Amino acid sequence: MDEFASIRLWTERRQSAVWQAGRGVALGIGDDAALLDPALPAEGIEGPRHIVAAVDTMVETVHFTRRTMTDEDIGYKALAANVSDIAAMGGVPLHALVSVSVPKSYGPERVRRLYDGLYACAERYGVAVVGGDTTSSPEHLVVAVPLLGAVEAGGALRRSGARPGDAVVLTGPVGMSAAGLHWLLAQPAAGEGAIDAAAAGEAAALVQAHRRPSPSVRAGRLLRARGSCRALNDVSDGLASEAWELAEASGLRIVLRERDLPLAGSMAAYARRIGASPLDWMLYGGEDYVLLGTVAAEDAEPLRDLFRQEGLPFFIIGETAAGEPGVDLVTGGEGWSGTASARVIPLRKRGYNHFA
Amino acid sequence: MDEFASIRLWTERRQSAVWQAGRGVALGIGDDAALLDPALPAEGIEGPRHIVAAVDTMVETVHFTRRTMTDEDIGYKALAANVSDIAAMGGVPLHALVSVSVPKSYGPERVRRLYDGLYACAERYGVAVVGGDTTSSPEHLVVAVPLLGAVEAGGALRRSGARPGDAVVLTGPVGMSAAGLHWLLAQPAAGEGAIDAAAAGEAAALVQAHRRPSPSVRAGRLLRARGSCRALNDVSDGLASEAWELAEASGLRIVLRERDLPLAGSMAAYARRIGASPLDWMLYGGEDYVLLGTVAAEDAEPLRDLFRQEGLPFFIIGETAAGEPGVDLVTGGEGWSGTASARVIPLRKRGYNHFA
Repeated sequence: MDEFASIRLWTERRQSAVWQAGRGVALGIGDDAALLDPALPAEGIEGPRHIVAAVDTMVETVHFTRRTMTDEDIGYKALAANVSDIAAMGGVPLHALVSVSVPKSYGPERVRRLYDGLYACAERYGVAVVGGDTTSSPEHLVVAVPLLGAVEAGGALRRSGARPGDAVVLTGPVGMSAAGLHWLLAQPAAGEGAIDAAAAGEAAALVQAHRRPSPSVRAGRLLRARGSCRALNDVSDGLASEAWELAEASGLRIVLRERDLPLAGSMAAYARRIGASPLDWMLYGGEDYVLLGTVAAEDAEPLRDLFRQEGLPFFIIGETAAGEPGVDLVTGGEGWSGTASARVIPLRKRGYNHFA
Repeated sequence: MDEFASIRLWTERRQSAVWQAGRGVALGIGDDAALLDPALPAEGIEGPRHIVAAVDTMVETVHFTRRTMTDEDIGYKALAANVSDIAAMGGVPLHALVSVSVPKSYGPERVRRLYDGLYACAERYGVAVVGGDTTSSPEHLVVAVPLLGAVEAGGALRRSGARPGDAVVLTGPVGMSAAGLHWLLAQPAAGEGAIDAAAAGEAAALVQAHRRPSPSVRAGRLLRARGSCRALNDVSDGLASEAWELAEASGLRIVLRERDLPLAGSMAAYARRIGASPLDWMLYGGEDYVLLGTVAAEDAEPLRDLFRQEGLPFFIIGETAAGEPGVDLVTGGEGWSGTASARVIPLRKRGYNHFA
């Protein structure tokens, strides 16, 4: 089977031409390049808009192995990671290209399953898959998903707008993906990411968080529309690292309160059972794909109410302060870690040590 | 050095913010995603436009090795392959993202050289580098370069518009890249793509064609503006394969005349010396990144004159005919292959055998 027959097998009858046309697609898969209408209808966007463009890449052995992810999961997450980047600008995802470099050992059926997962994510977020590239790879699967979206011109949420005195907010729990990965790696090898269902019950939410993240597009749109959000970032590399990026881009200090970090029950239970630190997963785990931002302090609680009305999680986890760019964690005190006296621990950008 | 420091090292002081703003870049490298103005000024494009979007990926051992390409060449060619896809739609390239998956053995200096080459290509074609992703890779370098461009809305040149009786045209020589690769692989291993200068003199043009292809953006724009070009494709997978794609997309037969295929002197000389068939390289070599198209027959010679005035190569190499989709080669007769009587050889999509 040649490359074009394979691509047809993987992509035909997935998204109708009519549906794609409604997303501004003038020409999709099958030519040298896709053609997109920049005046495309984009949900809720009126007036002049900017194109939002990102690419994230997933590499076998670096981001996944056959033990940690099924082929469907790989496709789903490769697109989801990019959806999260568009969400972090306050934008709407629209058009994806797919570059897959496939080891000979995979065969077309496994790639079809990867596309099954990718199209499942595309359906959930209304993304048209409009083209791409398929190459062979000597040993490891590599998936890059360039993604285009739209946002109101001049209205995108950058990393650099935080001001001292802002509240620091989070649109979902962190650390669950890392806990899920830890759980997966602790299971007996089962091949192809298949996990015994009974065993998975214990950690279902954690495994789901790792394999099928839920980027916060609606949350990003709400924050953008509100006008009080000053800086926004998605948590792909871990809370500490992303807070550092906001701090450096905005030129200020970010203070996180341990007691206000959202501790997922499933993660806490698993950490307790194995004697691990949930805080390490929360600060340094990564791949959570929730949004971390700063908002004008007076609007933090009203925003929490608004998010609650919309059925979306929202946590106020700290504040910003003038000072040398960096991140502090206020730990202990009344927090859930149980130590008696509050301490301020400067968080290094990487390599956190809870007891330093 | 962390990822962000590395990216700064590779990308800072390459393209000024003012220059990028002139290309419609509202926000470049450094946030979750780039922001681009879809009403951007694009050379020669007036009125409504479409976004043209493509991604091509280069994989170590599949598309290059240290023997065949320097790090600079890899970066240059990774972008050039995508510029060629935009050219093949009749578009203008504008904005590139860069995804690089880097083996630990590479080190930041080799990646910087890759970016040197990529930015050299970006400068030549006026492409703003606006973002990307850097990951590690277990063993092999993988470079994907998503590229956006612009074209007049409704005016892009697709593969599907050829009609019976069109002339088949080519915007440059084919086979030189394959001949260059053949020459490179025949040299004693020298490491890192370094070739002895004296030895390279013999094959300089062939090596250059392989390492630093020259996508036909101006030719694509001329063909688009002319109105007589009915179908267009770029020659990335070899002349026979690309002719097949035009034939299948347009539902007709393409007849190529061997005697009219442009035979580069450097390629002919090298083929003669080693006893190889230049025709094999020309039909099945690939990575030529010239354009193959069909034009209304009566405009073929006037177009050749126009291209000559512009200092651009242009070859009329065959015609289209009604019939089962496929590609024929008329060989022999008065052609340069020297055989006496003309024959019509149906070309298979892959795996051509000159003497079948």
